[in-house]
Amino acid sequence: MSLLARTALGLLCTAACVLPTAQADDAGELAYAAVDPFIGTGGEGHTFPGAVVPFGMVQLSPDTQIRERKQAYGWAAGYRYDDDSIVGFSHTHFSGTGHSDLGDVLVMPIAGAVRLEPGDSSQPGSGYRSRFSHADEQARPGYYAVGLSDYGIRAELTAGERIGVHRYRFSKDKPAHLLIDMRTSMYDYPGKVLWSRLRLHPDGTLTGMRETRGWAPGRQLYFALRVSVPVVGQQLHNTEKDIYYKGFAPPAADKPEQRVNIEGRALVGVLDLPAGTEQAIVKVALSPVSEEGAVANLEAEMPGWDFDTVAAKAKDAWSRALGVFRVEADAAQRKAFFTAVYHTLQAPSLFMDSDGRYRGPDNAVHQAKGWRNLSTFSLWDTYRAQHPLLTLIRPEQYTNDVVQSLLAARRHSAHGILPVWAFHGLETWCMIGYHAVPVIADAYMKGIRGYPADEALQAMVASADYGPYGGIAQYKQLGYVPIDQVGEAASKTLEYAFDDWTIARVAAAMGRKDVAKTFEQRAGNWRHAFDKKTGFMRARNSDGSFREPFDPSASGYGTDYTEGNAWQYSWYVPQDVAGLIRSHGGDSNFVQRIDQVFEAKVDPKLFAHMEDITGLIGWYAHGNEPSHHVAYLYVYAGQPWRSQERLGQIMRSQYAPTPQGLVGNDDLGQMSAWYVFTALGFYPVAPASNEYVIGRPFLRRAALDLPNGKTFTVIAEGLDDGHGYIGSVTLDGKPLQTSVIAHAQILAGGELRFVMQATPNREWGRARASRPFSMSP
Amino acid sequence: MSLLARTALGLLCTAACVLPTAQADDAGELAYAAVDPFIGTGGEGHTFPGAVVPFGMVQLSPDTQIRERKQAYGWAAGYRYDDDSIVGFSHTHFSGTGHSDLGDVLVMPIAGAVRLEPGDSSQPGSGYRSRFSHADEQARPGYYAVGLSDYGIRAELTAGERIGVHRYRFSKDKPAHLLIDMRTSMYDYPGKVLWSRLRLHPDGTLTGMRETRGWAPGRQLYFALRVSVPVVGQQLHNTEKDIYYKGFAPPAADKPEQRVNIEGRALVGVLDLPAGTEQAIVKVALSPVSEEGAVANLEAEMPGWDFDTVAAKAKDAWSRALGVFRVEADAAQRKAFFTAVYHTLQAPSLFMDSDGRYRGPDNAVHQAKGWRNLSTFSLWDTYRAQHPLLTLIRPEQYTNDVVQSLLAARRHSAHGILPVWAFHGLETWCMIGYHAVPVIADAYMKGIRGYPADEALQAMVASADYGPYGGIAQYKQLGYVPIDQVGEAASKTLEYAFDDWTIARVAAAMGRKDVAKTFEQRAGNWRHAFDKKTGFMRARNSDGSFREPFDPSASGYGTDYTEGNAWQYSWYVPQDVAGLIRSHGGDSNFVQRIDQVFEAKVDPKLFAHMEDITGLIGWYAHGNEPSHHVAYLYVYAGQPWRSQERLGQIMRSQYAPTPQGLVGNDDLGQMSAWYVFTALGFYPVAPASNEYVIGRPFLRRAALDLPNGKTFTVIAEGLDDGHGYIGSVTLDGKPLQTSVIAHAQILAGGELRFVMQATPNREWGRARASRPFSMSP
Repeated sequence: MSLLARTALGLLCTAACVLPTAQADDAGELAYAAVDPFIGTGGEGHTFPGAVVPFGMVQLSPDTQIRERKQAYGWAAGYRYDDDSIVGFSHTHFSGTGHSDLGDVLVMPIAGAVRLEPGDSSQPGSGYRSRFSHADEQARPGYYAVGLSDYGIRAELTAGERIGVHRYRFSKDKPAHLLIDMRTSMYDYPGKVLWSRLRLHPDGTLTGMRETRGWAPGRQLYFALRVSVPVVGQQLHNTEKDIYYKGFAPPAADKPEQRVNIEGRALVGVLDLPAGTEQAIVKVALSPVSEEGAVANLEAEMPGWDFDTVAAKAKDAWSRALGVFRVEADAAQRKAFFTAVYHTLQAPSLFMDSDGRYRGPDNAVHQAKGWRNLSTFSLWDTYRAQHPLLTLIRPEQYTNDVVQSLLAARRHSAHGILPVWAFHGLETWCMIGYHAVPVIADAYMKGIRGYPADEALQAMVASADYGPYGGIAQYKQLGYVPIDQVGEAASKTLEYAFDDWTIARVAAAMGRKDVAKTFEQRAGNWRHAFDKKTGFMRARNSDGSFREPFDPSASGYGTDYTEGNAWQYSWYVPQDVAGLIRSHGGDSNFVQRIDQVFEAKVDPKLFAHMEDITGLIGWYAHGNEPSHHVAYLYVYAGQPWRSQERLGQIMRSQYAPTPQGLVGNDDLGQMSAWYVFTALGFYPVAPASNEYVIGRPFLRRAALDLPNGKTFTVIAEGLDDGHGYIGSVTLDGKPLQTSVIAHAQILAGGELRFVMQATPNREWGRARASRPFSMSP
Repeated sequence: MSLLARTALGLLCTAACVLPTAQADDAGELAYAAVDPFIGTGGEGHTFPGAVVPFGMVQLSPDTQIRERKQAYGWAAGYRYDDDSIVGFSHTHFSGTGHSDLGDVLVMPIAGAVRLEPGDSSQPGSGYRSRFSHADEQARPGYYAVGLSDYGIRAELTAGERIGVHRYRFSKDKPAHLLIDMRTSMYDYPGKVLWSRLRLHPDGTLTGMRETRGWAPGRQLYFALRVSVPVVGQQLHNTEKDIYYKGFAPPAADKPEQRVNIEGRALVGVLDLPAGTEQAIVKVALSPVSEEGAVANLEAEMPGWDFDTVAAKAKDAWSRALGVFRVEADAAQRKAFFTAVYHTLQAPSLFMDSDGRYRGPDNAVHQAKGWRNLSTFSLWDTYRAQHPLLTLIRPEQYTNDVVQSLLAARRHSAHGILPVWAFHGLETWCMIGYHAVPVIADAYMKGIRGYPADEALQAMVASADYGPYGGIAQYKQLGYVPIDQVGEAASKTLEYAFDDWTIARVAAAMGRKDVAKTFEQRAGNWRHAFDKKTGFMRARNSDGSFREPFDPSASGYGTDYTEGNAWQYSWYVPQDVAGLIRSHGGDSNFVQRIDQVFEAKVDPKLFAHMEDITGLIGWYAHGNEPSHHVAYLYVYAGQPWRSQERLGQIMRSQYAPTPQGLVGNDDLGQMSAWYVFTALGFYPVAPASNEYVIGRPFLRRAALDLPNGKTFTVIAEGLDDGHGYIGSVTLDGKPLQTSVIAHAQILAGGELRFVMQATPNREWGRARASRPFSMSP
């Protein structure tokens, strides 16, 4: 968004003003206007500013660095706010990952001479990239625009579900071209592109595919591209020279302008537009299946050339998706809140042709009937709060599609298990756990059941019982993952035990007592990781001894923990925090331990080798997921006011409505979902429990239009910077004594009203009976 | 075939005996028994000895060298008779190519310790390869057996259309394994395998795929493999180490024995068979489409485990295919003749799943309805005699399938043209010309019409008019291909002109006078290559001048000719030999020139750089196709006895019923088709003319059961080594005065009777009216 545009938005409501309760009709409009897609594009957020519709298959966004820096981490979304040149606009991006891939089908408009290499960002004009300025750049949900100053080209982007649409304005005086680079990727290295193809059809359609290895090995993606003006010439280049067998090459191989198709590993296509072209619309559809599928998607979604209609549809989709919230807060908070909601609505994203065909983890094509296939499952992150949030703010069908997609992936899995971390249909084996299980369990327990329930339980059990994966065989035998055989064993034992508890919940609800009993027992396996002597969760060897030497500050691959250390992982028993507290000798001991987490003096250099551990408050690392529930744990120890304090501390220090405003990777919406829940005043510490732990509200008023047609409203009377403690709570006018609100209570609609005060209320939520307690299936 | 087996065959009929005319019932049996698949596996033949059914998709054969020698030429079929160790048995092989590829899904049975690399052939025991001996080796059509002496394993192979079946006999005392190497290829180099996959299913089925670049870039092939005994363990290896992204790998990635699937570029799978396994049947199906397609093909073709039934079916298919001929000749001749017939029945081969799906030149999957998709089109070679032979000895449906497959390939071609040199559905752009055109024209002119004829003419014209290919744009403008713009221009001009003539023939037959006129004119373009001064066909520059300096002995890439020189290419006007003779100043001048070709003293070292130019008699190079019609040209000059002499000279010196018995690459049956026609006594010098030029017979009697149910018989009275000249000829008892026999005359059945004599008959065929003359559309 340009400085000017931002100022204009700011004028809608100055920091001091409070908006009147919006009418439902303009709620969407107001929510839409509040979003700033640049939040998280600097710092560690790894979000992208480009055009996307809610859960769309296409994420069309500018890339500022490609094929240049060895360190792919910082450019995982292709764009960094501090860069000053753009390589082009590619059609696939992750929103906030810590690893990188995608960046498919990069299109760059060019005026004048065409160079085939992007060039060095430190040497302006050394390649086809162009400089740009933030003053000449705008972003709104589903829309992005920028001036490419090296070429004098104005570029606008918008998107549909399966399409990305570009509008380029050229000055008349220079020859206009489109460059399509099939080599680029967020994480590029020799051999990354396994194979690719470009094919110019007689009607001017350019289709193609590429197959890459990397995070998802063997990934195939197809596309079709059409231009609103005639393609008057083309050059199809292969910048790798030795590709043809003994010199046999397609017709006129030495003349890229005569080729109409090309295959290879390093392809660049250039399309020439007619002399004097002032404006060209470029529409691109993706397909997981085939070039024909991409053409069909293109025709289904955008038969004509009306950029503005597509952009308006995108705006409408976002307004509807964001507008389920009506919020009273100052402009900065509204921006942060709605941008967080925006970021939670990106994944799992559509991965299916318009005819229902998609590619599974077996890299084969399948047909979805009656549901939409989704992919990009960052499950280790998103099972915590992002999926639970989507059950509240999206129509049930969305969560049904999530579950159907997970079950389908399992049916097509050679391992017979649910996805671990999947994108574009393929398994990456990234991170740990079997966290598709709590996603399904959370949906089932909330009564979302538009999928075969028996198969769902079967799939959950199969995933939890699959011996070769992550030490499960040993875990089943020993009750913990042994560190002398399997890495990151402490984290695995803890997360498996939680996932197991969610299976027990579902099995019990289905009346499957046998399964429930087994997994209830496994849910207690966290105890095998608990070391009474040190008070930490630790990894044991297969002989039962804890691994020595033990350093609770040690983190990283090869240690006992996954992207964390003992100080961060020792509180991960969401299914039985009461049991954890007893293990520590009771409430006050436990609170002391949690205080040690937040109050330790920690040199951030300690985590220099772990790029994902960021956002430190003591040992607490808000930038990474293992910490996300920790601030809520005081509530379980009967001291909710301590949680209220900590949450204020985190909200103040870890989020800001600026490009640098996310302290850690957004992780496909988990960082943002934490913000949304916390701002509303409650958080799903134990998904599948149907309980939310009450933290404290950060918005004066927030109304949520639920999928069932009811409206749930949270009001925080007297809230301001000096009044951050809960004085009292009522639900529909009746005092709420528990520090928990049930999912059913939210679904019933009504009003949760907080009265805020300047000092802690040390009585509310103190009694044992008023605390959250999940451990029962 | 072992020495013993060959002796036994020899006993059926010693060199001196003449077999009685076989009954139709045992004609197949006798023909089958005469074939020696080892012919051509030494020397330059490049045939393979393994198991295949007529035109089968699977060619299951031993490979003796793989991933070892830089020079792939000699091992184009994977096996060389002079090698003494076998790497394994792979499922795809070309029969007699000059370039190499294929060698897919190599299976090696192993007893004892498993090594993952094949090892060096010069160091026995250095890898998984095993020594073998010809004394312990047998080959028959559709069956191959060998003892792998390093392992004490007896291996037998047979094949169906889409399956290869292995029977391995192990000694009980050592652990039995199957190794599946997905890395191997006939022409291997770094990066050859783009991607591959192995997947072990719960039922013990191993499926997988590989995608390779090379001769056919981006080629995908899928397979499914089942074993008759339980697979009790597996190790799936990736011998390339850096394939996984930042260390994320499938479950238990460091433990190949726990993996059930693997993707990568360097895969080796090992299946463990139960202790004490004495025999295992391994059945493997291929699919161009998918792993599921391969499983379906496997189940369709071999539901059980009866190796002998599959072998018997293969034998039956061969007996029927070969048994259309009943031949009286000595054993060596019968062996040479029937092995030649066997070699003509390999390609174009099936390339389609049992449900009709196949992969086209666009690398996409298509559905054949009512016809069978064929591929492996070595058209530059096979349009000359192999396709014309198949119209005589195969049911019409086969040629209809050929044409349908060519037309389908064109429909799926990004260039909109017929295949040039294609295999596994993909275009290789190998060699020159648009010789799918004469194949279709020959079929059409012979009345074989089970395909859309209008589309056929359209496809022929489109291919002949496609400007970017091989200088066609310039050829259309100038009447010749200009050498200053396009390589090998003289050869191209000549071959294009012939192909054009066949289009004119078809167009005229269809009443399309406009098209006929254009292409009849183009058929005369050979005149633009003719240099009166030197009497050679030469390449012109675009300004009309001949390229200088001119050396009629120069050959090779960069010269004016394709795999040949002026001495070899200057006689290529099969559509108008009479015109060519006139250009040379009449019969005797022309005969003198042809004699110069055969009688020159040529140092074979002159062709050391052109591996395909072999089988030299003077300049005549029988090992390569441009020479194939030359010995028949004397007939056109009214001196058929000179052709009779030359043919005797060629048959004696260029063929032998031994592994070294083919002097040049068999080229998917063209070398062998030349032999079959020539042995019968006639040859299709100008396909699409419906004329065969009479040479002289080499068999005492040959009966051909035609597809129309009639039988055509050739009898050579008095034929022996001393009686090689035609004295007189009768057709159905009436004197045949012309040195030509028409296709219709053959199809009518009846008896072509030669009376042979010791000296030339200088009258028969001398008169101008009796000579072949094709140039009229």
